Amino acid sequence: MSKQTKFLLNEDQMPKAWYNLQADLPKPLPVVLHPGTMQPVGPDDLAPLFPMSLILQEVSTEREIEIPEPVREVYRLWRPAPLYRAHGLEKALGTCAKIYYKYEGVSPAGSHKPNTAVPQAFFNKEAGVKRLVTETGAGQWGTSLAFAGGHYGLQVEVFQVRVSFDQKPYRRAVMETYGARCVASPSNETVYGRSVLAKHPDHPGSLGIAISEAVELAVQRDDTKYALGSVLNHVLLHQTVIGLEAMQQMEMADTWPDVVVGCTGGGSNFAGMVFPFIGHGLRGGPKPRIVAVEPAACPSLTRGKYAYDFGDTAGMTPLTKMHTLGSQFTPPGFHAGGLRYHGMAPMVSHARELGLLEAVAYKQVECFEAGVLFARTEGIVPAPEANHAVRGAIVEALRCKREGKAETILFCLSGHGHFDMASYQKYFAGQLSDESYDEAELAMALAGLPSVPEPA
Amino acid sequence: MSKQTKFLLNEDQMPKAWYNLQADLPKPLPVVLHPGTMQPVGPDDLAPLFPMSLILQEVSTEREIEIPEPVREVYRLWRPAPLYRAHGLEKALGTCAKIYYKYEGVSPAGSHKPNTAVPQAFFNKEAGVKRLVTETGAGQWGTSLAFAGGHYGLQVEVFQVRVSFDQKPYRRAVMETYGARCVASPSNETVYGRSVLAKHPDHPGSLGIAISEAVELAVQRDDTKYALGSVLNHVLLHQTVIGLEAMQQMEMADTWPDVVVGCTGGGSNFAGMVFPFIGHGLRGGPKPRIVAVEPAACPSLTRGKYAYDFGDTAGMTPLTKMHTLGSQFTPPGFHAGGLRYHGMAPMVSHARELGLLEAVAYKQVECFEAGVLFARTEGIVPAPEANHAVRGAIVEALRCKREGKAETILFCLSGHGHFDMASYQKYFAGQLSDESYDEAELAMALAGLPSVPEPA
Repeated sequence: MSKQTKFLLNEDQMPKAWYNLQADLPKPLPVVLHPGTMQPVGPDDLAPLFPMSLILQEVSTEREIEIPEPVREVYRLWRPAPLYRAHGLEKALGTCAKIYYKYEGVSPAGSHKPNTAVPQAFFNKEAGVKRLVTETGAGQWGTSLAFAGGHYGLQVEVFQVRVSFDQKPYRRAVMETYGARCVASPSNETVYGRSVLAKHPDHPGSLGIAISEAVELAVQRDDTKYALGSVLNHVLLHQTVIGLEAMQQMEMADTWPDVVVGCTGGGSNFAGMVFPFIGHGLRGGPKPRIVAVEPAACPSLTRGKYAYDFGDTAGMTPLTKMHTLGSQFTPPGFHAGGLRYHGMAPMVSHARELGLLEAVAYKQVECFEAGVLFARTEGIVPAPEANHAVRGAIVEALRCKREGKAETILFCLSGHGHFDMASYQKYFAGQLSDESYDEAELAMALAGLPSVPEPA
Repeated sequence: MSKQTKFLLNEDQMPKAWYNLQADLPKPLPVVLHPGTMQPVGPDDLAPLFPMSLILQEVSTEREIEIPEPVREVYRLWRPAPLYRAHGLEKALGTCAKIYYKYEGVSPAGSHKPNTAVPQAFFNKEAGVKRLVTETGAGQWGTSLAFAGGHYGLQVEVFQVRVSFDQKPYRRAVMETYGARCVASPSNETVYGRSVLAKHPDHPGSLGIAISEAVELAVQRDDTKYALGSVLNHVLLHQTVIGLEAMQQMEMADTWPDVVVGCTGGGSNFAGMVFPFIGHGLRGGPKPRIVAVEPAACPSLTRGKYAYDFGDTAGMTPLTKMHTLGSQFTPPGFHAGGLRYHGMAPMVSHARELGLLEAVAYKQVECFEAGVLFARTEGIVPAPEANHAVRGAIVEALRCKREGKAETILFCLSGHGHFDMASYQKYFAGQLSDESYDEAELAMALAGLPSVPEPA
């Protein structure tokens, strides 16, 4: 019997319910505040943005939330996703650790994002919504929503940050292939966009502006809603299919992780992988170490403040308590675009405050080094975001080697890098550096956090 | 029980041997001729280019050729590849046909090419070879050999057609990520390359020139061999894992194809899919219709002559009998770069002559239309080459609809289009046309075929 490389589940082993960590948290999540009144929001306050089914998922404390069959039907295009034993990487590192990775790059969009795009599109369709608007930076999320919305016959409009719109036309082509409409942001299609363009006709755009444009359109029309690709509780919930499958696959591999590693931007692939393991531990199961890896250039968990803040730059979204670098903080232009967000998902932040996870930050170049080693030993070229998780796993494997411990390491390889080869090209040309933020700017952004009355 | 979408095999169901159609052919393949003497070549004549193990596979008439365990180990990174039922596409077409597709885009390179790159690298490594040289156009084959060679610690050098080298730097970045060295061809590294550059310093390159450069380097040094990504018998042999798996998966789906469709350039993904079905039929099993789909702009099977011709433009390779447009024929610059070859694999050509398969040619724009419909209904954006197979399957499904026949259609989706979004972008911008060749040029290329003494 040869050593096994891939651990595959059958379609009927795909989870039938998402796992909701809110059911097992020893302390509930802090409330969400209204941007106008600074008072706790109720479901109705969010109704202009999201269908009620998703709002109820956002606040639910049920442990299991059923995955509707029409969602499972689309999931089956790529799920269950494979889990691999990284024999090649282990050998290259000379470690006694066993390294496993869950690979989410098998989805049509090449990342974990469709795990939530599909149910978001489904629940909107169910609620009679005709059009979804969203924002995208590099394009990973926009692609996923385009795919999912297209599947259910929803019109999808994507405000893409202008600099990406111009520099990454191929991503736009993927979105258009799926039938979505892409608009460069800032645009002339919203009041906010026009106001920005009036002042700066050549504005390169930002994720914050694009969010504001999408939100503005969504609240205007009853048949139009907004969709977000990370951060929110219901998004993290949908991603738990990753960890739920991985738990079954670790059993197939006849082992259990001593440490689970993921990369964190908004936090969704990380939460999707680790929440089921954390919950299992909270309910009396084994408690693996949980390690969040973030970019040193945008280190919300390791350098941010745990405080109430806006989700966007313009201050139009509700306020949540999270680890934040300040909504006015502008991360430097490093290549893991999916990790360039000022805040961390409130539920991930909360878990960190409760001591349920650790966080580390690694620099860009060392993460690309890790990604290239991974490509050469395992064959898959990781997305720049996923390189952070690879780096995190390698650091743990080398620690095991030093300590002579045969631990089991599991990490989430959230996506492939086929759309990101320009950054690898720069890496090989020696043109990548460890972009850093300005300490003074960070201090100013943190000082500018909104002051919020302590909730009763 | 919900309808099943994916048909997955376990790792131990992966084929243990490749299938060799030569064992079952009612008439043996025509001999191969030496380019200098025009006499039949023996194994020794090919030894400067390939290791003896691959040469013996090239001429073998054994039905099964064992897949070495170290090759199977690498195959396991992505094999067995999934087979899907195209529920979404069927619904969109309103057809009573059942459509299945075997998806080879799950490989590290995103196409079927690693199926042969891995064993080629392995057998070269076994033979003590240190360096592999090859040519690549768009980059799909170069990427695959870079991946495979890197895995076995072989140095890989890729002569990439200069125009692609300049226009598709991302493909080059993938090859470099896997550790290969890319050289723009024509180059200063070979006598032939220098001779071309002396006359045309700005020569954009061609596949023919790149082959000549790679062959020149390979024959010069004992530790260096040449590798080809299609056309040759041993390449087609390695690809039969596609069809062998698909046969098991059709059994899982409790059906058998009435028609099997594939796209043909050099012929390797097509042969890999259909040869096991053809052989099964020749040995008394059911005989599905076999349909080769080629681009109307480079129609070797439907418009070429079945004659002896060179594999390259310079006339350095052995001559094989095949359907050819003439080695001096220059296909127009359409976007399915993997299908731009003047000749067809000799074994596919031979099967065509024996009446074992049909061939059709479709135009570029109708193939992109098919690909976009496929992306919107099945979620996967196909490579432009694979769009031809999609188009072929759709034509068959619509015929079934007209005729009221609930046939089973199987096709090979040879790769995804993530690296080809520039062509989709042009399609959406209305900038794609049905590139055609010049009839006079084709007539001239056919008139210029080498005259060969009839073998005894």
